[in-house]
Amino acid sequence: MSPSAVEKNAERLTLRFAQLDRAIEARATETIFQSARRGGVRILGACGGRGTCGSCYVRVVEGAVDYAPVRVHAADARLGAEGWIRACQAFPKSDCTVEVAARSLAAVVRAEIGTPGEAALHCAPAVTTYDIAVAGASISHPAADAERLIGALPAGAVHEIDLRAARSLSGVLRQARGHVRARVRNGELIDVAPAGSATLGLAIDVGTTNVAAFLVDLERGTRLASLGIENPQVAWGGDVISRLNHAIRAPGGAAELQASATAAVNALAHDLCRATGTSIADIADVAVCGNTAMHHLFLGLPVAQLGRAPFVAAVRAAMNVKARDLGIAACPGANVHVLPNVMGFVGGDHVAALLATEERWAAAGTSLLMDIGTNTEISLIHRGDIWTASCPSGPALEGGHISCGMRAADGAIEGVAFADGQLALTVIGNQEPVGLCGSGVVDVLAALREASAVDARGRIAASHALVESIDGARAARIAPGVGFSQDDVRSVQLAKAAIRAGVDVLLALAGLNETAIERFIIAGAFGSYIKVPSGIAIGLFPDLPAERFVQVGNAAGLGVQRVLASTRERGRARDLAIRARYVELSSAADFHMTFVKRIGFHSTPSARRAS
Amino acid sequence: MSPSAVEKNAERLTLRFAQLDRAIEARATETIFQSARRGGVRILGACGGRGTCGSCYVRVVEGAVDYAPVRVHAADARLGAEGWIRACQAFPKSDCTVEVAARSLAAVVRAEIGTPGEAALHCAPAVTTYDIAVAGASISHPAADAERLIGALPAGAVHEIDLRAARSLSGVLRQARGHVRARVRNGELIDVAPAGSATLGLAIDVGTTNVAAFLVDLERGTRLASLGIENPQVAWGGDVISRLNHAIRAPGGAAELQASATAAVNALAHDLCRATGTSIADIADVAVCGNTAMHHLFLGLPVAQLGRAPFVAAVRAAMNVKARDLGIAACPGANVHVLPNVMGFVGGDHVAALLATEERWAAAGTSLLMDIGTNTEISLIHRGDIWTASCPSGPALEGGHISCGMRAADGAIEGVAFADGQLALTVIGNQEPVGLCGSGVVDVLAALREASAVDARGRIAASHALVESIDGARAARIAPGVGFSQDDVRSVQLAKAAIRAGVDVLLALAGLNETAIERFIIAGAFGSYIKVPSGIAIGLFPDLPAERFVQVGNAAGLGVQRVLASTRERGRARDLAIRARYVELSSAADFHMTFVKRIGFHSTPSARRAS
Repeated sequence: MSPSAVEKNAERLTLRFAQLDRAIEARATETIFQSARRGGVRILGACGGRGTCGSCYVRVVEGAVDYAPVRVHAADARLGAEGWIRACQAFPKSDCTVEVAARSLAAVVRAEIGTPGEAALHCAPAVTTYDIAVAGASISHPAADAERLIGALPAGAVHEIDLRAARSLSGVLRQARGHVRARVRNGELIDVAPAGSATLGLAIDVGTTNVAAFLVDLERGTRLASLGIENPQVAWGGDVISRLNHAIRAPGGAAELQASATAAVNALAHDLCRATGTSIADIADVAVCGNTAMHHLFLGLPVAQLGRAPFVAAVRAAMNVKARDLGIAACPGANVHVLPNVMGFVGGDHVAALLATEERWAAAGTSLLMDIGTNTEISLIHRGDIWTASCPSGPALEGGHISCGMRAADGAIEGVAFADGQLALTVIGNQEPVGLCGSGVVDVLAALREASAVDARGRIAASHALVESIDGARAARIAPGVGFSQDDVRSVQLAKAAIRAGVDVLLALAGLNETAIERFIIAGAFGSYIKVPSGIAIGLFPDLPAERFVQVGNAAGLGVQRVLASTRERGRARDLAIRARYVELSSAADFHMTFVKRIGFHSTPSARRAS
Repeated sequence: MSPSAVEKNAERLTLRFAQLDRAIEARATETIFQSARRGGVRILGACGGRGTCGSCYVRVVEGAVDYAPVRVHAADARLGAEGWIRACQAFPKSDCTVEVAARSLAAVVRAEIGTPGEAALHCAPAVTTYDIAVAGASISHPAADAERLIGALPAGAVHEIDLRAARSLSGVLRQARGHVRARVRNGELIDVAPAGSATLGLAIDVGTTNVAAFLVDLERGTRLASLGIENPQVAWGGDVISRLNHAIRAPGGAAELQASATAAVNALAHDLCRATGTSIADIADVAVCGNTAMHHLFLGLPVAQLGRAPFVAAVRAAMNVKARDLGIAACPGANVHVLPNVMGFVGGDHVAALLATEERWAAAGTSLLMDIGTNTEISLIHRGDIWTASCPSGPALEGGHISCGMRAADGAIEGVAFADGQLALTVIGNQEPVGLCGSGVVDVLAALREASAVDARGRIAASHALVESIDGARAARIAPGVGFSQDDVRSVQLAKAAIRAGVDVLLALAGLNETAIERFIIAGAFGSYIKVPSGIAIGLFPDLPAERFVQVGNAAGLGVQRVLASTRERGRARDLAIRARYVELSSAADFHMTFVKRIGFHSTPSARRAS
């Protein structure tokens, strides 16, 4: 290594991802995986870069890395022969060009216009588009560019001009020879684009663990494509509290977290536009939802008061801010509409979920909406009243912080059944199983209970055909190289007990019994794949008739798209945020007692399920 | 010099001005004078740093400089003994602490409340201030900080929160224990300050040569202090066209010019607040006016189309932008209101001057408003019609680009009379004369004409008691070391001819003779000091009875203060900008002919003045 290269290591390096058309800043002291996350490049990594899951394979096409994996995986030898290494174990020594393995690359989910089940959104966007022809200036008519442009618009349409729009309009007018598309929001001219440009919107659901983005055609109300990546803030802790602590205590911590959320949004926008052949410069409006902590970290709001009782948000109402004030790339004067919070940690993502599912819950006398995520929000709706709480359920139910957990990608066990004394597995992509995704986690625990490999208190049996002891620690053997440890069982127990205790507290407040729930709506990207009987078996859901359950997928994602596309829906979101009555579980008298009661399992799972 | 110091020279150095409580970035390749200008530190420098005027004395208290003056001044030896050197001839070799000589330091002109002639402004500011008490949050009432604050305001007062205000309000609420002052503009909460804070406004007149700032108490409508510094954009050319060319052609040129204007405004705000014991964080609103070129360069608007015929502005109407988008320091969500332009190069500064003088011109049937500056704007107002033009008069009339020109500071000759075959001088501060300020320039030329030292075509006499020939070039000797050269005479001739031809064109358009002008209003900071008979003598003004002339000082500065303090005045400014009919002189058929006719002087000046 030359001295200049050594010096350069102390500075910042560049990682190029040619297949993604992305280049990001990296550090020699950080793994490729960490840099990719920070830069919003979507490499899978279920274990968060601890080197345990084997999901982040990359190949270094150009440049040098230090690679000394802490733990060898079964797949390493096979893939290593082809040059694949794990990004979380590789430190760049120079600028590198990196290829991401197909299996480690999150896929762009593209929804074509008219896809069954993809109803068009109600389309009344905050940004109005005008296609106009603007006359040129002359000695006899030397009116200013903006003045001539505004003169070509309906009278009164514009009374303010965004600074960046003002800076760009003279150039666009001349380049497009006066044939332009003007974008106006609330009487403010926010952009002038050449005629024929699309008018796009970007809806973002900032989850604690994942960030989902939806590219919407704001003229037709159709979704063009969607994409999810891991929230790069995971680098500062999988849970909300670790991140709040980082923002509060580390110098520049809040800015780091804000910048990393912004980078994720920009990366998603980049990839979505690339996949659909559209341009970021045509993104005329952005809508964002997240729980209150994600909301504050995204906006760079102070969180010291949110991190301790009484958990006070800085802002509850919806905010409209300039995209540039957040560092988000879009058209020159684009705004970001951030959905209103309810209170405590119940944020705009739950408002969006309530909005997206209203047709379902409003039709029943008593409904329960459960949006399962790293934070699980629950709303009990009874005769028009909405009680809402947030449970810190952790990432276990999504396959996170589980020893062999991984995302729902090829090789992930997504289904497990116990029959004839054996575990029958369903694996995504019909491949050799390499880990467990969220639905698989719930299934595994239900199956292990049924097999009596886990007792009612959650202990793995000392002696059982499915159990093996490695270094004195018991684990159920699910597949070669894929185990389910005592810690994994405990993680799931804590998650389901927190969620179930939340349900109990809300029911008690409403004076209802769980059998009163006529409609049980399971939301969340992961919630779509969970098998309801398995959820009932492990006590995550109450034991209600199957027909009362409905799984609606990422309701928050749908809600934020609706809000993006329609000012009417923004009004509805505002009303729902005010209508929802927040219940602070940590101060609810019966929460902790109920939580403890819900830690264990039914004493005879098989008998109960058969009944 | 140590190697690290050498390396450091290639990077940026810091200049500290302890007496001003300022630290700015400097470069080893730039003089202290240049760095000071760029950073908005107010060192006098009439010659623009060419080393000719000797007005920029500083002392290096700490650090090292290279000092090798190109030309030795009479004052150098005397001041040098005390350690004073000229800032325009000194290059920093390290970080330095620099003291500015009292005579080289532009003074803060402070107007106390109730100063005679300082009528309070009409006070209806765009920003409304509310003093409120906000209850704390509790477990039983954990409402968000912004929600509790808005609840303490009149219903409907706030419907949006500025992002930066949102970021700061939680801290301020707790620090001030809920006793706060909320600042609201157009329903947007822009700031929350501790109770008892002042609510200030900053009015800025960005002239081509000087930037004037006025600090206003927005609750009382009183001016607290005012201050002017040279426009640091002078570093890229004294005239508008050089700067436009730099912005158009140099990579990053527009950004450089924008940043330098911003730095000047921030420096003025800093010094004004320091002088009045107030805080920049209490500046709740900013209003700015300038000619169209200064307006565009200040806002970072494109100027390519403004720099060539038909001289089209990007934006004519008033703009409201966030101070942060321009890099201007103020309260978190402060806005900058930029006055509307008329057209061509006639900008918001002339609108402000029209606004400030309306009581005067509206009272007469026919009035003429002449705002003398590097660009001189002229409005002819006749029976409600307003014809407006802009003349590129250059800085000569303000003492700029004159060989011994200087600002109106101690040692400047401000008055010259010819009597008994001799020049009688009036010197600011009753000191030994060191140069000529603007009013002195006009006086000198009138006196030299009267003495017949300059002929009707502007030639300096070959043989005259007041004339000496240095290296073959003739110059009138005004005082020891202070001369008035043939080039100086030519500069003044070009300036006065351009202005007077402009007047002629407007009169012709209105079908009037100059004697029809019932009121001749002379505006401009320099215009206050000019002696009207001298102006008539050199042909700058028409030969009207003395009582028709009125000198109103910096009318643009007063106008921008009015606009700052009152939304009603913003409406009036908008109306005036639309009402004024722009006349493009360069395409007026008779302008060039008239200009040539106005270059010379009356054939018998003395006789004429005596008549």
